[in-house]
Amino acid sequence: MVKAALFDVYGTCVDWHGGMRRAASAMLAEKRLDPSLGTDIAEGWRHRYQPAMERVRSGAEPYRPLDSLQLETLADVLDALDLSHHFDAADRARLNAAWDALPAWPDTTASLQSLKAAMPIAACSNGSVAMMERLAAHAGLPWTMICGAELARNFKPEPEVYLKSCAALGHAPADVIMIACHPDDLDAAAACGLRTGYVPRPDEWGAASVAPDPDPRRFDLHAATLGELVGQIASRAH
Amino acid sequence: MVKAALFDVYGTCVDWHGGMRRAASAMLAEKRLDPSLGTDIAEGWRHRYQPAMERVRSGAEPYRPLDSLQLETLADVLDALDLSHHFDAADRARLNAAWDALPAWPDTTASLQSLKAAMPIAACSNGSVAMMERLAAHAGLPWTMICGAELARNFKPEPEVYLKSCAALGHAPADVIMIACHPDDLDAAAACGLRTGYVPRPDEWGAASVAPDPDPRRFDLHAATLGELVGQIASRAH
Repeated sequence: MVKAALFDVYGTCVDWHGGMRRAASAMLAEKRLDPSLGTDIAEGWRHRYQPAMERVRSGAEPYRPLDSLQLETLADVLDALDLSHHFDAADRARLNAAWDALPAWPDTTASLQSLKAAMPIAACSNGSVAMMERLAAHAGLPWTMICGAELARNFKPEPEVYLKSCAALGHAPADVIMIACHPDDLDAAAACGLRTGYVPRPDEWGAASVAPDPDPRRFDLHAATLGELVGQIASRAH
Repeated sequence: MVKAALFDVYGTCVDWHGGMRRAASAMLAEKRLDPSLGTDIAEGWRHRYQPAMERVRSGAEPYRPLDSLQLETLADVLDALDLSHHFDAADRARLNAAWDALPAWPDTTASLQSLKAAMPIAACSNGSVAMMERLAAHAGLPWTMICGAELARNFKPEPEVYLKSCAALGHAPADVIMIACHPDDLDAAAACGLRTGYVPRPDEWGAASVAPDPDPRRFDLHAATLGELVGQIASRAH
């Protein structure tokens, strides 16, 4: 039986690769620079996501909202691509704001709405509450509430992020399911006693990328699409 | 002591990511399609490289030159990006030919020339002899000879590719050094008794990518640049 559902957001609910690629490519074209570097910016930025959060998780730096970390890693990406002098502070803020304007995957909004009829649904992202609010408004994500990193002032996969999210929902971890397209996120949730539901997002790194293919037995639920997964969860609603 | 040097080519000597990204992006722009998908094509194509060769290595399919396999995997990449109907057979042949027109890294030609003064230098690539000849002419790679996959009618990291390449050079594996920016290529060469030299190519997957960082003790020689590496090898010339 499941009483509430937590969702990973970047990748699982929204298409960060396509959204950021198009945003960066459009800014490059405006500046008459090579627009094909838009994908390099998107992917280079995302590759620097875990190392930036790791400085907080390791205790080397205090917690800051993700958008503050992303603004720093953007500087590294632009340096690496020799684009720094083309992007002033206003340009960088505009590119960083594209994280709040990513498109939902086509099946996300309807699937979330459907599950929300059966139980509370909450974001459990490494993005801050303010980022999640802006993204929800843009992408149409009908959260009952926003949980995640900021509740714990730390980042997934630290256990306290999952545990404080369950506490905020008022449920024991065993009554909450974590839903993600990232096996390591689900493994960390399972280690905290949550249920887990895997959905593949084969286009997360672009439609041409080659998708992971984890063993279905690794998670409590495993479906081909988000619609199918929320159907399975709703049938287990308390 | 080292008597001859074998070089990996795609990634180690030439910049496939930048070359293919620009070629694909230019074709997309010609067709008034999103040029930022050029990186997605380059990376999606490269991601399908190992699985395609694996069908030959496993014995499921007979050997074919790499360009023939690449033409098939290009169809998969274009399908995944929903671009198939924009690329006719002539377009696909033109894009496939961009593998033969990749740019050398800035230090490659001078480093190869310098080492060639001390010993024979040979390509040991999964590309066919014809592909290597066209690429050498375009990128300025002054090979003494072309070894690699076609000698063995199989693909790296199968042992016979390294062993037949040493045999073609007329030297025992222990007298030959394999040079690459890919740790797994060097591990396979070492298992065949060759010496190994690692050079990082941190921009192999684009300047914004995050580079691998293998333990220097894993290889016989490990240098920061190709120029430094060939200096170390020349000092060990027989």
